[in-house]
Amino acid sequence: MAELKTPASFGAVSLAGRYRQVREFTKKIVAPLSAEDCMIQSMPDASPIRWHMAHTSWFFETFILSPLKDYEVFDDEFRYLFNSYYNAVGDQFPRPERGLISRPGLERVRDYREYIDRHMLELLSGDDLTDELLNAIDIGLNHEQQHQELMLTDIKHAFSCNPTLPQYQTEPIAASSPAQPRWFDFEEGLFTIGNQTEGFAFDNELPPHKNYQQAYSIASRPVSCGDYIEFIDAGGYRDPGHWLSLGWTMVEEKAWSAPLYWLQRDGQWMVFTLAGLVPVNPDWPLCHISYFEADAYARWAGARLPTEFEWEVASHNCGGTRFADRLMDDNNAVHPVSEKQSSSHPSQMFGGVWEWTSSSYAAYPGYTAPDGAFGEYNGKFMCNQYVLRGGSVATVSDHIRSSYRNFFPPETRWQFSGLRLAK
Amino acid sequence: MAELKTPASFGAVSLAGRYRQVREFTKKIVAPLSAEDCMIQSMPDASPIRWHMAHTSWFFETFILSPLKDYEVFDDEFRYLFNSYYNAVGDQFPRPERGLISRPGLERVRDYREYIDRHMLELLSGDDLTDELLNAIDIGLNHEQQHQELMLTDIKHAFSCNPTLPQYQTEPIAASSPAQPRWFDFEEGLFTIGNQTEGFAFDNELPPHKNYQQAYSIASRPVSCGDYIEFIDAGGYRDPGHWLSLGWTMVEEKAWSAPLYWLQRDGQWMVFTLAGLVPVNPDWPLCHISYFEADAYARWAGARLPTEFEWEVASHNCGGTRFADRLMDDNNAVHPVSEKQSSSHPSQMFGGVWEWTSSSYAAYPGYTAPDGAFGEYNGKFMCNQYVLRGGSVATVSDHIRSSYRNFFPPETRWQFSGLRLAK
Amino acid sequence: MAELKTPASFGAVSLAGRYRQVREFTKKIVAPLSAEDCMIQSMPDASPIRWHMAHTSWFFETFILSPLKDYEVFDDEFRYLFNSYYNAVGDQFPRPERGLISRPGLERVRDYREYIDRHMLELLSGDDLTDELLNAIDIGLNHEQQHQELMLTDIKHAFSCNPTLPQYQTEPIAASSPAQPRWFDFEEGLFTIGNQTEGFAFDNELPPHKNYQQAYSIASRPVSCGDYIEFIDAGGYRDPGHWLSLGWTMVEEKAWSAPLYWLQRDGQWMVFTLAGLVPVNPDWPLCHISYFEADAYARWAGARLPTEFEWEVASHNCGGTRFADRLMDDNNAVHPVSEKQSSSHPSQMFGGVWEWTSSSYAAYPGYTAPDGAFGEYNGKFMCNQYVLRGGSVATVSDHIRSSYRNFFPPETRWQFSGLRLAK
Amino acid sequence: MAELKTPASFGAVSLAGRYRQVREFTKKIVAPLSAEDCMIQSMPDASPIRWHMAHTSWFFETFILSPLKDYEVFDDEFRYLFNSYYNAVGDQFPRPERGLISRPGLERVRDYREYIDRHMLELLSGDDLTDELLNAIDIGLNHEQQHQELMLTDIKHAFSCNPTLPQYQTEPIAASSPAQPRWFDFEEGLFTIGNQTEGFAFDNELPPHKNYQQAYSIASRPVSCGDYIEFIDAGGYRDPGHWLSLGWTMVEEKAWSAPLYWLQRDGQWMVFTLAGLVPVNPDWPLCHISYFEADAYARWAGARLPTEFEWEVASHNCGGTRFADRLMDDNNAVHPVSEKQSSSHPSQMFGGVWEWTSSSYAAYPGYTAPDGAFGEYNGKFMCNQYVLRGGSVATVSDHIRSSYRNFFPPETRWQFSGLRLAK
Repeated sequence: MAELKTPASFGAVSLAGRYRQVREFTKKIVAPLSAEDCMIQSMPDASPIRWHMAHTSWFFETFILSPLKDYEVFDDEFRYLFNSYYNAVGDQFPRPERGLISRPGLERVRDYREYIDRHMLELLSGDDLTDELLNAIDIGLNHEQQHQELMLTDIKHAFSCNPTLPQYQTEPIAASSPAQPRWFDFEEGLFTIGNQTEGFAFDNELPPHKNYQQAYSIASRPVSCGDYIEFIDAGGYRDPGHWLSLGWTMVEEKAWSAPLYWLQRDGQWMVFTLAGLVPVNPDWPLCHISYFEADAYARWAGARLPTEFEWEVASHNCGGTRFADRLMDDNNAVHPVSEKQSSSHPSQMFGGVWEWTSSSYAAYPGYTAPDGAFGEYNGKFMCNQYVLRGGSVATVSDHIRSSYRNFFPPETRWQFSGLRLAK
Repeated sequence: MAELKTPASFGAVSLAGRYRQVREFTKKIVAPLSAEDCMIQSMPDASPIRWHMAHTSWFFETFILSPLKDYEVFDDEFRYLFNSYYNAVGDQFPRPERGLISRPGLERVRDYREYIDRHMLELLSGDDLTDELLNAIDIGLNHEQQHQELMLTDIKHAFSCNPTLPQYQTEPIAASSPAQPRWFDFEEGLFTIGNQTEGFAFDNELPPHKNYQQAYSIASRPVSCGDYIEFIDAGGYRDPGHWLSLGWTMVEEKAWSAPLYWLQRDGQWMVFTLAGLVPVNPDWPLCHISYFEADAYARWAGARLPTEFEWEVASHNCGGTRFADRLMDDNNAVHPVSEKQSSSHPSQMFGGVWEWTSSSYAAYPGYTAPDGAFGEYNGKFMCNQYVLRGGSVATVSDHIRSSYRNFFPPETRWQFSGLRLAK
Repeated sequence: MAELKTPASFGAVSLAGRYRQVREFTKKIVAPLSAEDCMIQSMPDASPIRWHMAHTSWFFETFILSPLKDYEVFDDEFRYLFNSYYNAVGDQFPRPERGLISRPGLERVRDYREYIDRHMLELLSGDDLTDELLNAIDIGLNHEQQHQELMLTDIKHAFSCNPTLPQYQTEPIAASSPAQPRWFDFEEGLFTIGNQTEGFAFDNELPPHKNYQQAYSIASRPVSCGDYIEFIDAGGYRDPGHWLSLGWTMVEEKAWSAPLYWLQRDGQWMVFTLAGLVPVNPDWPLCHISYFEADAYARWAGARLPTEFEWEVASHNCGGTRFADRLMDDNNAVHPVSEKQSSSHPSQMFGGVWEWTSSSYAAYPGYTAPDGAFGEYNGKFMCNQYVLRGGSVATVSDHIRSSYRNFFPPETRWQFSGLRLAK
Repeated sequence: MAELKTPASFGAVSLAGRYRQVREFTKKIVAPLSAEDCMIQSMPDASPIRWHMAHTSWFFETFILSPLKDYEVFDDEFRYLFNSYYNAVGDQFPRPERGLISRPGLERVRDYREYIDRHMLELLSGDDLTDELLNAIDIGLNHEQQHQELMLTDIKHAFSCNPTLPQYQTEPIAASSPAQPRWFDFEEGLFTIGNQTEGFAFDNELPPHKNYQQAYSIASRPVSCGDYIEFIDAGGYRDPGHWLSLGWTMVEEKAWSAPLYWLQRDGQWMVFTLAGLVPVNPDWPLCHISYFEADAYARWAGARLPTEFEWEVASHNCGGTRFADRLMDDNNAVHPVSEKQSSSHPSQMFGGVWEWTSSSYAAYPGYTAPDGAFGEYNGKFMCNQYVLRGGSVATVSDHIRSSYRNFFPPETRWQFSGLRLAK
């Protein structure tokens, strides 16, 4: 596992604290939900909340605790039930049927989490943590944080299927600071792409490598809901000339005529959020669009999507402040709003919406997948997916960095996905 | 609604008692289940238990309470959410998505049931019950009793999808009395078919009418698991010569090689029951087979299925004792076993397994569907379904009668469906 | 094969003449078609014309010639390629892929037909024809005649998929004699159903048996296009209250809003016929409707479909004159028109349109399928199909008789299928 | 259309000659085929030969002749029938139904081709050819040449569906020169990618631009059938560890266990070729594999696929000699064989098999799609496709160049697609 950078700066003590913090945040996400809420799987891409709760624990049990001598597995059936896609670990319960399982129920899964926590914290209090174990724990925590974002997007999708449109949160959506977009220009040259820090990074951010870029410009802010309404009003969803061929097929097959969760009531665009159905605020960053919609909008606007390399270079030294873990502490609903713009660099690169890039998700030059099951974490998905950068309002702050690569198939819409123009 | 017979013998008092009894039995069925268990929809044909609980209450609210002045609807959304298929009542939430709804949750549905019960019992305690109301209430109770059987078969199917194979009941399956089959002969002649009693009958059992039958013979008992194992061992599932063309297509597409819920472990046939996975007892009546399997077995055995008319005539004066409501009182698991045979008439015509007949489900001569929404109860399903007779171990005793017509598409297997030979 | 009636009245000489006549008529049907026309399979239910040409010859080769000593098979591959559904004969080339085979081409198939004809006529000129052989030949000829009707309906469907809407025939559609419908009444009683003549009958018309019928009335003529336009104009395709549940599903899934082949141009109903696109004549018998549409129309009209038994009894002594073999000799396009009505009995029971009955296709009491491959001819299709009676304008005259049972799944529309009301 | 390079070196005279040559080669391809052969569409990805013949003529008619004054369109219906995917030109006949059209038949399509040829040659003999027209004609010829390759691969697929496995050609497959592979090493550096010649190039090869590459090595020859049999024998199709996640899904869903067209007879690998079914020669370059299989093989072999940029740089100055147009002149069957290796550079980069690269098909930096319908030629397909380089034995010699980019979805197998290892 030499490919994964050792989080050398973590001692065992701080790691225990971090472990507690991460696991607590999962509880915070689940708090407003009933046993039934935790069971819905509203589409094959999503998973039940209860499954997320168990699977993230299964991860620690399978990769850290089980290999330890004296550790007793909580329940033999869980190995199969809560394996997501690790063929190296064994067979998996079919993903689209995760919502058909009522047992183990929520209480038993909570017991499972406590059991794992007890053993993990015991392990973390000891002094026999090898680098390899530290590394695996770090992956486990980052893994759970990724699932925290999915829990928010999955419950949002689940609730959107209920005609009564339940609210996940009653907290208000934060206030906005609208702004006109402008261009920031970047010179051509050779740049280093990929993670170069000492901190944790996923294998797909590595190794750092040289990349040649032509001169380009990037917009100061993401495309807003108001911008996009112009595209809709101009007939954007009715003219195949704006669309990739596969995108147009989707528009026709799925009868897309607006972003996911948008609907019209009395001529007003409304949007379903984690705080329920609210009017669309034109200043907000656009989200819940597919790659196809991002690409079509950019073409219609006379621009294009940035490559992930352009995006990464442009994002150096840019900030952003609204992430899931902070928002929920601040008692704001998890929804992206617009922020004050900087005059010196692009704004809201991080923590508003994931921004679709034009880059197909592929291995970096020199990439080698880790040995064993961790090799299945990222590498085997490098086909027919597109890279998103930046992190959304539903992302935890630990994952906010220039080199982080998110990826989804181009038709995906249930993530907080938007775009920023380049040219 | 002249087509539905007025249950003249019921006074308001006994009706209140009966109402309580029926509603209590639903509670009894739900008792062993968790909130999560009550949410699963394991296939489009089945429904979540919580949906059954709400829909049966919706039925009383919609057809009896709502038209009353002063009645306040419990929740406006329910009209849409819990309408099964009554176009006359309005739109329906899509059937295959019933499992995607977590709210209203189990507690709220229990509140709904109590609210309905309170109002219904108040109504039943009054003295202004018209014949029409009495009739509708009778339909509502019979309707809930039909759903009680579905609740048992639906939860069985749901649990069968869980690789941990949970038990719904821990009570034992009752003891068996094996017996060799023999034939009972019936003369040709004109017979009256259809319900002729004073008691409740569904519209599809009416009107009574003359039917000419040729001489025929019918077996003394249903086909047993042991009988069917011979068919399997003889290659019954591999020879298209035994099968209807559509049946053979199913065998190939679904890779059928045994009844639903059967699996082999170390050369032993096992079967998943409401009491968990147990060895197949060869004496038990065969169940969980499709019409196609019933027909193929009969052809292989050199016999045929009876028509529903032959079955009805043969069933007069025949008894049967094991129905869902009694079994659960007796603390036995709901599963059909073999019973002692009579020497004077066919045995176990009632209450063991539903018996597939060769009759396509169709209107009796002179049938007219009731006006309004009740006209959708039976009539619109008279196409591509086959009639089953007798009632199974999961049927409530009120539904055990010679004229009762159950019906399902020929590929259906999740009901307690078996067969009896004729020739 | 005792179940099939021996055509005792045929001597070998007349049989040769009949053989020639039947085979010639197939040539006549194919005459206007190109090699490409003969190759289209426009849907799985239909077959390429070239396949029909080969399969009907394969039938004679397989069941009559191959068992003879000294007969040399024309081409070994054909046994597999042109077997329709006879499992007893061996594997079959998958039905939906019949249109993917370009070789053997039309010329080779014509050679095949000539080869079979030469050997068949040689056989028929001999004097060693057993009853069994005579019977098989009779089935073979009736079989080819059934395929002649399918050739006409299949090429019609194929051409309808071509946006240039080619004409199969340029001959005119015959003139019409419009008439108002009236009712003919029939008494209740016991009637004998099934074929009782000396002539050829299929196994499914046998054995004759007693059937009790209640009094009923039947309409003097089939429902006309004009009648049906009233149903359409009254919103018949938009109100689920008229439809069987499965029928309404089809209306919604397939977006049915008129019979097959109908389209509107400038407010005028047009219909695609074998003679191309022409205006709908309101007097014509309605055709190309499914069982669902027939049933919905009847319900809307306050009537119902007759049972096949009612139809059969009512059709005794009724005539009809326009069948495929005569029409094509008379140089008229194959399309049903209205005829002068009789005052003494229902008109156009035969040879206009196939009339859907309410009867599910099932075995007659006492029916036994023939042994061997002929047992697959009819018996294995007795599920989820509905009986049509009478014969259409595309039926050959030999098949016009009271007892003939045609059958199709209820969603079928590409046959010349209409309806007659009963009550 | 400034993005397309003007073929300045062509005068009108040589262009007429080239036009004749290209159009003649289409006739040569069609020569062995019957009218029925030219009609098959064996899968949605493929098209009938007759459609290719018409569509390539439609291209000249639509983009060159129709805008000319005095030109009379051959048949108005063709505009719709033979439009492949140009939304800018209007609606299109649905692609998967191209095989359902029997008219216009082969003869009429031949007439169409002659009519177009007459008008095109008349135009080419004139002296009023603008640069824009010259450019469009050049695209039209290159377009027809692309379809020539598709005609060969489509008829191969069509014939493979016929259980009689017809031969398209009876000519022999050419002899082979087996060789052991070795590695050629390339230095890191900035390279120019894209077409820099004066000759014709498609828009997707432009503009030339700088690209930074790390040091890499590339194999001296494509992976051979023998190499791949080792992968199969080692259980390559049974171990998910070698596969991309989407690839493994395909393996399971489609039950892939060998390349397309391979089958085993008595323990010997056979392959269906344009010359019929023949034994697999282990020396031949492997072909008819998907991107998923190419990727899995490379991973199993401890190597990887080259990027398209690596491939392009490595291919400079490399030759290859067997292309469709030459092979058919030489009376050899169109099938890739192995050739003598060079010691100085990689061999068989061109004209053996298309080689899958790891590069997702995307626009080059600075790419702009041409205006109008030609803008739909390449740009709208830049999603979920992977680039293949080199040209196969079925490619015409005009298309053999380092910068040519072919592209297909990763599951595609019916092209002559193979791979070359890199590391």
